Order: sequence, then structure tokens, then C-alpha cells
Amino acid sequence: MDNSLPLSSQIATLAIQIAVIIFAAKIFGRLAEKVKIQSVLGELSAGIIIGPYLLGGIAIPLTVFEHGLFPTVGNSNLPVSEMLYAFSVFGSIVLLFISGLETDIKQFLRYSTVGSMVGITGALFSFASGAFFGMKMFEVPLSDPRCLFLGILCTATSVGITARILTEKKRIDSPEGTTILAAAVLDDVLGIIGLAVVVGVIGMESDGLVKSSAWGPIGKIALKSIAIWLGFTAVGIIFSEKIADFLKKFQPANTFSVLAFGMALLLAGIFEHAGLAMIVGAYVMGLSLSKSGISNAILRNTAPLYNFFVPVFFVVMGMMTDIKIFVDMQVILYGIVYSVLAVIAKLAGCALAAYFMEFNLIGSLRIGAGMIPRGEVALIIASIGTGTIVTLNGVKTPVFTPELFGIAVIMTVLTTILSPLLLNLLLEVKKSGLRNEKSNDEKICTSYSMPSDNLREIIFQMMLDKFHKAGFKHSLQLQNGGTTFFSNGQIAFILEKSDDKLVFKANSFNTEIIRCIMTQVFKDLRSNIHYLKIL
Amino acid sequence: MDNSLPLSSQIATLAIQIAVIIFAAKIFGRLAEKVKIQSVLGELSAGIIIGPYLLGGIAIPLTVFEHGLFPTVGNSNLPVSEMLYAFSVFGSIVLLFISGLETDIKQFLRYSTVGSMVGITGALFSFASGAFFGMKMFEVPLSDPRCLFLGILCTATSVGITARILTEKKRIDSPEGTTILAAAVLDDVLGIIGLAVVVGVIGMESDGLVKSSAWGPIGKIALKSIAIWLGFTAVGIIFSEKIADFLKKFQPANTFSVLAFGMALLLAGIFEHAGLAMIVGAYVMGLSLSKSGISNAILRNTAPLYNFFVPVFFVVMGMMTDIKIFVDMQVILYGIVYSVLAVIAKLAGCALAAYFMEFNLIGSLRIGAGMIPRGEVALIIASIGTGTIVTLNGVKTPVFTPELFGIAVIMTVLTTILSPLLLNLLLEVKKSGLRNEKSNDEKICTSYSMPSDNLREIIFQMMLDKFHKAGFKHSLQLQNGGTTFFSNGQIAFILEKSDDKLVFKANSFNTEIIRCIMTQVFKDLRSNIHYLKIL
Repeated sequence: MDNSLPLSSQIATLAIQIAVIIFAAKIFGRLAEKVKIQSVLGELSAGIIIGPYLLGGIAIPLTVFEHGLFPTVGNSNLPVSEMLYAFSVFGSIVLLFISGLETDIKQFLRYSTVGSMVGITGALFSFASGAFFGMKMFEVPLSDPRCLFLGILCTATSVGITARILTEKKRIDSPEGTTILAAAVLDDVLGIIGLAVVVGVIGMESDGLVKSSAWGPIGKIALKSIAIWLGFTAVGIIFSEKIADFLKKFQPANTFSVLAFGMALLLAGIFEHAGLAMIVGAYVMGLSLSKSGISNAILRNTAPLYNFFVPVFFVVMGMMTDIKIFVDMQVILYGIVYSVLAVIAKLAGCALAAYFMEFNLIGSLRIGAGMIPRGEVALIIASIGTGTIVTLNGVKTPVFTPELFGIAVIMTVLTTILSPLLLNLLLEVKKSGLRNEKSNDEKICTSYSMPSDNLREIIFQMMLDKFHKAGFKHSLQLQNGGTTFFSNGQIAFILEKSDDKLVFKANSFNTEIIRCIMTQVFKDLRSNIHYLKIL
Repeated sequence: MDNSLPLSSQIATLAIQIAVIIFAAKIFGRLAEKVKIQSVLGELSAGIIIGPYLLGGIAIPLTVFEHGLFPTVGNSNLPVSEMLYAFSVFGSIVLLFISGLETDIKQFLRYSTVGSMVGITGALFSFASGAFFGMKMFEVPLSDPRCLFLGILCTATSVGITARILTEKKRIDSPEGTTILAAAVLDDVLGIIGLAVVVGVIGMESDGLVKSSAWGPIGKIALKSIAIWLGFTAVGIIFSEKIADFLKKFQPANTFSVLAFGMALLLAGIFEHAGLAMIVGAYVMGLSLSKSGISNAILRNTAPLYNFFVPVFFVVMGMMTDIKIFVDMQVILYGIVYSVLAVIAKLAGCALAAYFMEFNLIGSLRIGAGMIPRGEVALIIASIGTGTIVTLNGVKTPVFTPELFGIAVIMTVLTTILSPLLLNLLLEVKKSGLRNEKSNDEKICTSYSMPSDNLREIIFQMMLDKFHKAGFKHSLQLQNGGTTFFSNGQIAFILEKSDDKLVFKANSFNTEIIRCIMTQVFKDLRSNIHYLKIL
């Protein structure tokens, strides 16, 4: 019967696979949070465990899953089916679209000098050390695609875990915290541009147009990639409100939010066909809409798409990790060396820049430690490496073999585990990180009791709108376990949302601003209620 | 370069296709609403126009779309790529999951005798006429797969457009209106069971186990299919709250809602592999959760998934319609004959049942006319027919050729266009449809002014919760252009939501209930506000 219904059976299997993935992701994510590691690591582990190389490869007799629920398919160089991979790519598009959307462009444009210096130095050091690792490992020149990928893989910091730790320790609005967040914005952009350049260059190389050592044409293609990125970003940001006005014609918000995601898909597809990478297009679209008036509504209404597609991405990344390669001590060794280089590069690069600015040693180290973790961008680049075929020594081969993919996963996991340990240690030292210690403002908690869930939600939404109008952005990705982080590029504070309370934690100056805004919210609410013509 | 990046290029193309589909769907949907036809017809037309047989097949020079944005792919018997088709199947799963979720089980269990009789008779007449059409067209016995598909295709009424017209004419809570809605619930269930049986029987036939004329084994497989359906539905409904409790462990609501959809995917896949159809599993899962306390939250939080996937389904159905076959007068003729039979069968079957119950001629005809439109279920069944390969006269062939698919589309379109015309005409007659005219209650409008968007939304949500607790269900699918339809199986009313108002339209008895509930909402809101500890 299966042979007579091939496509519908394939899709049925895909439906079961995605259902299992979503549940595994959420369950492992929760477990990870319980043992205090990042939920992303839980999702990655879920993928390794239920994936084709472990449980997923075990036959389930008397069912259609004779080769397991996630059989390795020999069709391509991927261990998962092409359809499942397509869903995971959509996950990476959602992820980077939301990342772009949450970017605070105001912060990005008037970033503190320290933040930008920290971001640039960290990214350069990381690229250099990653590429250097590749050069030594394969004994090839820098222009070898593997070196470029290993370099670019290292550049982008995944700031989520750092932000959560700083938030828990109530240090997110410290000079170190705001510097890390500003640096991470620049960092993301540098990673994205770097990826665009590298994919462009490798696309050109695989066309056979140039030799690996011809830097002139590589420079040209790099400039072209940067120009495309810059052009689309500039147009997007300039026409931000025009795009938003067009989208707003399609009310209600959950309709235009889906259309906004549609625009991200469109730009992602165009960028890929133009020889850049899909996530670059998705990020540019998110960035373009980030300063529009509807960015908040889009964030709120794409949450189900995020919850549906993004776990598929992380779990599939885990599935692509062949644990058999870890039997090979050399792979583990290379992985550890690569991780150590990645840690040192970020730590040294960022700390150095911070130390030459206004921070003392402990402050600089805190910033460096906070910038260590690599995450989704590194995984996406590794999977692009797996899907990119180049000609090396006359043989067609993917840039990333399973071994290199494994090394990239080791680096992602180790940096993500190491960073919080180091950062916690450095935060234990009760000393300001600034060279000229400013008066260290105590955090003030301001608590508002909420009589009901419904009312808490409306007050929360009215408050978001007010803060948004006042130039603050909040982060959905950082919004974990009820904690939301707000920033307007200069001041930052956190909000904890529990069942019956909204609790703000901020220094005394920020607390004044918060109280002022909340008073307005309550005033609006009360005047609205009085206006209500009740029978 | 495209050859070196085959999969990522395919996915990039898929991303662009889906983006174009979502925009085309929304734009054509809006246009359709403007000329007062159902938005679904707009989405179908969008698919035909941008599809492979028209614009989508036109080459775009100097791009990767040398064979058009939607090239016909010769790989399978589908005119769209398998990945795009997979996304459209996910759309049908979302659609039927939501249909199940919106079903009012209380109404289904204690449906009015009239409603159930109307539903059953209409479905039986429709199946008979559709199958009869197939027998005459192909000169084959009833057990031929094409006859069974053509029969089952006719059974399920798509009640959306009827509900909207009755709502516009303020007749949704008339005896005719409530009878149609009750009948449509049963109708859906009969269609779903019928589909399960037919797919099961054809699956068995293509195994070569029985000859087409062996009714004994067919009866057995039919019973098995019904047993599976009934078993899962019973278990689902009995453990409804248990499933909900499990899901509720994954707060917030947009997480557990996505997991609920994951369960629908799981059951859809299991049903397909068990030889039934995916949408049957999705519907059963929706039905199971419909009476749980979280059905409202799931409906609200899956809206973006609905808006993302469902347009892909309708547009792809349009794309599968090869307009070239309409050059063949015979196809058009067959399409018209099939449509006429489908119209007469529903009209006669439903009106007859109604006439033997408490309705007079005009009332019976109104009910019959309201039951005419076929929609998404017919299209899904036609596409399943296209994907199901059987052996006819020793040759492997899909059950539905492009011509038969075209005939099914003609029937869907004509019945959807004809029904509102007929119904409007019959509603022009200002006469009660009941044999013993009851006092025809005037509709009373109760209007509540809303001071702000935010407050309107919270009042709307608080009100939904209250109505929900009072046993009312509301419909997301029927919630178009701001009009929501509420029903608790016995009484029904509508709510119109505009920018600054909530307007209820109901008879005097229902208005009392509404006022009572709204007074509670406002009381809650005020006591909540007073409780607020404001600085």
C-alpha cells in the first residue's frame, strides 16, 4: 500500500516526525532549564537522542517505520529527509527574522563607542582564530572554503544565555551588561555580512572562475555581497514605515504578521538565489521592520510560528550530529582545540577592547566572558557548510563533512556551557567593572499586584505600547520564564511577570521613568473605564 | 551554481513560492470579499491565475525561474513540487483540526432531531447522486474507486458562506439557521467517516486483495474504518480534560497551542499510515479538544498557523486545476451535470427531511439552499483522489485524472456561488419558515462603546471567557470582518466588533442573557481595577 501512495505516506511520516520533534524539543528544553543549562542545548540533545544515529534509527517492527522513525536517507548528504530539512530551514528563517525584528536600530546607530569596539574586535579575533584553525588542520591557505566557514562560524555571539544570567544577577543594566548587548548587535550584523561574503565567494569559486589564491576577484565579490546587504538594509530601513503601512492594510494583526513573515521568506529566497544566504535576507527584513510601529504586534503574533518552526531547526541540527564520529579521539581533540581557540579569541578580543576603553580588568573579563557563547548562527552556518558542494582537489565534496559539523557542534555546546560558569565566577567578585567607579546604584524593585490574568495581560500590553512609544524595545527571545528585558539603547531594566504581579527591577533613575509610565498606563485605564457606557 | 546547491536552491524557491502564495491569497481574498463572493473562491482563483498552467508557467528570463515561478514538475502526477504540496497538506490538517476544535460537541450530542435528520438525508442523497454520476460517466459498478470518491466528495457541506449570509441578514438564530448549523456538524462527521471508509476500501483494493465487486470484504473494511474513527473519537472525548491538563503543563498558551497542533499532526500521520486519511485524524484531535477548557486558547493562539498554512492549501488546490481541460466542452458539461446533481441532491435531501419535520415549504427550501455549498473537504478529497494510485483494467492510474479534478473544482465553485443567490432569494420572502409560526422575535441591537483598542480587546476576551464558561462556543472560521457567531446549541446570537464598539444582535430573550453576562464582565473589570494597588 505504501508503494501505491508514496507521497501521502511521505507526508504522513513527516507529520509524525514533526509532532515528535516539537514534543521532544519542549520536554528536553524544560529538562535543560531545570538543570540550569540553556534550553537550546536541551533541544540539540533531543535531536541527537531521537535522531537517525540513535533512537530514530531503531526499527519499529510491524509499522511503516521499518528503518526507524528517522531513518538515514542515502539520497543526499543529509541524514534527514529533504522535506524535514526544508522545515528546519524555515525555522532558521523565522529565527533570524525575529532576531532582526528585535534589534534596536537606535542602539545600533548610536551604539556606544565601547560596544562597537568590543563587537568588532571580538568578531575579528574570532574569525582569525577560526580560520587559522582551519589552515592548520587542513594545511591549506586562508582562501580555502573550509577555513572561511570555520572563521565565520566563530564570529556571531549568541547573547541569549548571557542576557539571562545578567538578568538573574540583576546586572543586565550594569555598564558591562549594556556594553555586551550593544556589542552583540554589531556582532550579529558582522556575522551576517561575513556569511554573505563567504557564501558569495564560495559560490564564485565553485563556478570555477578563480583559483583559491586570487584575492582580487574575491575582494570584488566580497564588496558586491556587502553592497547587496547594505543596499537592501538601507532601502528596508528608509521605507520601513511604508512597508508597515502596506502590511497594515491587512488587518487584523495576526494576518499582517503572517504577511510580514511572508516578506522575510521572499527576501530570504531572493538572497539565496543571488548567491548570499537565506538567513541574511530574513535578518534584513526583520531589521527593516524593527523600527516600524508594528514590530511589537508582529513579534506578538508570530510567536506560534516561532514555537512551531524554531524547535524543528534546533532538533534537526542535533539530528545532523553523527555521534559515531565522537568515537574518533581526533575529532574530539580537534573539537576541543577549536572551542578553546573560540573561547580565547572572544574573551581576549572583547576584553582587550573594553580594557582600552573605560573598563578595569574584572569588568573587561566580564564582558569577554559574556561574549563567548555561540549559538543558532553558528549552527546555521555549519548546516549551510554541509549543504554547500565545492570542488576540492578535483573532487566534489560538501564544505563540511560530518566530522567538521561535529566539531562545530562541540564548539557551540562547550562555549555555551563555559560562558555562564565563567561569568558567574566573575560576577561573584563584588567590585565595579569600571575603572572610575561610579556610584553603584542599588536595584529597586517596584511591584504591581494584578487582580486577574486578563487584567495583567491588558496592563502588560498597554505598558508595552507605552514603553514602545517612549523608544524602548523589549526582547521576545530573552523573554523567558516570565522575565522581559527592556532597553532604549541607553537605559535598561527588567520586568518579571508572575501570576499575580508585575515586578520591575531597575536603578533609582530608571525606576522614576518606569513609575511615570506606569502611572500613565493606570490613568489611561481608569479614564477608559469611566468612559465606558455601561448599561 | 544552482547545480552545486540543489537543495538550498529548492528551498529558496519554495520560500519565494510560499511568500507569493500568501500575498496572492490575501489580496485575491480581499478582492473576492469586495465583489461579495466568498474569499475562498478568491484564493482558488489566485491559485489558478498564478499557478503552473497560467502565469506561474511563464519563464522569467535572467533569473532561476527559467520555467516560471511555478513550473509543472514531471516528477509525479502533481503539477506542483512535492515540498509545496506537503505544505498544502499541512494546511488541510490545520483546517480540519480547527474545524474539529470549533465543533460544538454538546450540540452534536443533543442535536435537534431536525438537524440530524436534515444532515443524514442530505449526505445520503448527495453520496448517492455523486456515485451515480460516476457510474454513468465511466459505466462501472458502484464499488469502482472513482464512484466512491465522486460520491463522498459531495457529502460534506461547507457551512461558512451560509453562516455569513444568515448573519448578514440577521437570520442566523432563526429556526432555519440553527437547523443548518446542527445539520452541518453531523454532515462534517458523516463526510469524515465516509472518507475514512472509502480510503480504507481503496487501500485494500489496491493491495489486490479483493475484486471490485466483493461487497463482503468491503463491508468488513468499512466497519474497521468506522471502528477506528469511533474508537479514537471516544477515547479523545473521554480523556479530553486529561489531554488538556497534559498540554497545560507547557505554558504559556502559545506553546501548548502549538503542541496541540503537534498532536493533530501525530494523529493525522497515524491515521494515514493506518489506511485512513490524514484530515480524519486531524479532525478527531480537534473534536477531542473541543470540549476541553483550553479550546478557546488554542483557537486564539493557532491563528497565525492558520493564516500561514491554510492559504497555501486553497491556492495550491487552484494550482492543481489545469485550465486547459476546460477547453474540452465535455469536461465542462460533465462538471455542470455533476454540479446540478450535487445541488439537487442536497436541496432535495435536506428540504425533504425538514419538510417532514416542523418546517413549511419556504423554510425547508431555505435549509436546503443553505446546505448546498461544498468547500474545503471536497477539495481535500479531490486532491487525495489525485494522489491515490489504483489499478484500473490492469493499468496503474490515479483515481482522479486532471479532468476529474477539474470537474470537482467546477462543482465546488458553482455550488458556492449558487447557494447564496438562492438563499438570498428565499430570504426575501418575509414569511416564517415554520409550519406553526412562532412569535417572530424582533432582533435587538445592544451596543457597547469602547474607549480604546486595548480595552475593547480585553473586554472581548473577558467576555469570551464568560460566554465560554456559560456553555457558549464561538466560531473562528465564521468570524469574518469582525462578526462573531455564538451558540450554545440552543440559543444563538451574533456580535459585531468595530473599531470603537461591540454590538450584539439577538432576540429579546437572548439579549437578557447577553446583558447579564456583560454586566458581570464590567463588574469584574471594575472590581479588578479598584483592587489594583496603584502608586
